[in-house]
Amino acid sequence: MDILVVGSVAFDTVETPFGQVEDVLGGSATFFSTSASFMTGVQLVAVVGEDFPEEPKGFLKSRGIDLAGLQTRPGETFRWKGRYGYDLNEAHTLETHLNVFESFHPKLPEVFCSAQYVFLANIDPELQLEVLAQVDKPRLVACDTMNFWIDGKRDALIKTLKRVDILLINEAETRQLANEANLVKAARTILDMGPSTLVVKRGEYGVLVFSAQGVFSAPAYPLEEVFDPTGAGDTFAGGFVGYLASTDNLSDSSIRKATVFGSVMASFTVEDFSLNRLRDLTWTEIEARFRKFQALTQFEGLS
Amino acid sequence: MDILVVGSVAFDTVETPFGQVEDVLGGSATFFSTSASFMTGVQLVAVVGEDFPEEPKGFLKSRGIDLAGLQTRPGETFRWKGRYGYDLNEAHTLETHLNVFESFHPKLPEVFCSAQYVFLANIDPELQLEVLAQVDKPRLVACDTMNFWIDGKRDALIKTLKRVDILLINEAETRQLANEANLVKAARTILDMGPSTLVVKRGEYGVLVFSAQGVFSAPAYPLEEVFDPTGAGDTFAGGFVGYLASTDNLSDSSIRKATVFGSVMASFTVEDFSLNRLRDLTWTEIEARFRKFQALTQFEGLS
Repeated sequence: MDILVVGSVAFDTVETPFGQVEDVLGGSATFFSTSASFMTGVQLVAVVGEDFPEEPKGFLKSRGIDLAGLQTRPGETFRWKGRYGYDLNEAHTLETHLNVFESFHPKLPEVFCSAQYVFLANIDPELQLEVLAQVDKPRLVACDTMNFWIDGKRDALIKTLKRVDILLINEAETRQLANEANLVKAARTILDMGPSTLVVKRGEYGVLVFSAQGVFSAPAYPLEEVFDPTGAGDTFAGGFVGYLASTDNLSDSSIRKATVFGSVMASFTVEDFSLNRLRDLTWTEIEARFRKFQALTQFEGLS
Repeated sequence: MDILVVGSVAFDTVETPFGQVEDVLGGSATFFSTSASFMTGVQLVAVVGEDFPEEPKGFLKSRGIDLAGLQTRPGETFRWKGRYGYDLNEAHTLETHLNVFESFHPKLPEVFCSAQYVFLANIDPELQLEVLAQVDKPRLVACDTMNFWIDGKRDALIKTLKRVDILLINEAETRQLANEANLVKAARTILDMGPSTLVVKRGEYGVLVFSAQGVFSAPAYPLEEVFDPTGAGDTFAGGFVGYLASTDNLSDSSIRKATVFGSVMASFTVEDFSLNRLRDLTWTEIEARFRKFQALTQFEGLS
């Protein structure tokens, strides 16, 4: 099954202790769709400015990503500038220029409306609702959000969540959305808001997945070289939803495996700036790292 | 195999958002030996003051812990007072009264000197060396330490580490000891200092175990009620070394299972103040939670 993703396509300027890059390809929809494209087809809906060059479009197309929903508008492409310190866990935003994104309204090409798998990247929940109004009857809606919307657009977000199957947010957002410090209780509160599955992203500490079936914990891959965490969350989501869509299996066991595939994809992304590591990534490498996650977590049961 | 543990026996006064307790039984050797006692015999070496009552001694004895090495000295027992905020990850020490612990020198009863399993709890590395000078030829030496000693008694600590097989410290201590921000690189540096296994404790994020055999990641159990994290690290160590000593098997597979048993024991301890949860804990409960760790971490391999 193909996945419809709606989110941002951007240029990032990033400083980490290991170097810096200027105006490199970024954005939630870009990271998500590149990651998911290793497993299934992707239909991308986003907006770029007239300054957006052909090369990245060519790259995305070469990954089998359908750009029929990529609008080009007068003005400049969304730009983000951020810095990471040595802990690499928290991005410090230095500049955000929404540019053409400011007046963005997602418009789905006719053929995208029958999408069975939908990922609503971290955008204004009102825009997420606009997307949901255009899709017919998706089998799975997954969604990301952030502190800015939890705080500033809570009502719209609550409306969105009623129609979301899987919510993927970080630990602080989980506590903020539920207004509860204990993560297990917070998760239960959020599962009452609509989603049947909550994926709590904890950066270098991995992921916790909550559902009626129980809890699943996956570690992050312990890496010696973390160059740039930008896009790790969206790349995780791409591997996660990508696996589910490719198998069209939403069982607990499939969701666990999807979580590990998401973690695998995120572990590659952070090894280099922008999408660079994904550009020459092979399926053999993905499978090899999946096996490393098995080796990382396996232990014998009680005899 | 029995385990020799040298550390503190103390009275703790603890405030958490969920309540407070005054002068309750605590101390690294107390938590460690109570936890380990579910798996094997324990020989305890520590010091208490003349104010130390009979009840806790009776409790420890009822757990099969040999108190022949528990000295009683004129003066008061070690007292610690601390507070935890809502995140429960970091203890804020309000008061430390070493009292009789200030002039403590571990003196092993003759019969303890042939111990095959030794746990050096978090005490002055010079005292840890005094212990090692008294034991004949242990099969395994495990050791804890803290920022205070890494900073203030580095030379003695380095000497101790040359004779340690398994070092158990937290994440910040790992980075501090190796003087390296990246955990994987820091672990490699520490494995070059002597220990063949490094256990990095990450509180609610679980544990990473590094050795020449690779890396093993175990989550912490996601709990709805965390009352008091005091003693979690020592209880982990008790379950961990306890399992190894009880099986007398130091293979990678055994160390992984020991890590899960340690995590199980720690998950119980934090459910109540002091050692309270361990007082009525049963082996059936321990096995049931071990199985919950399996359910928490299992995923299917590639087909």
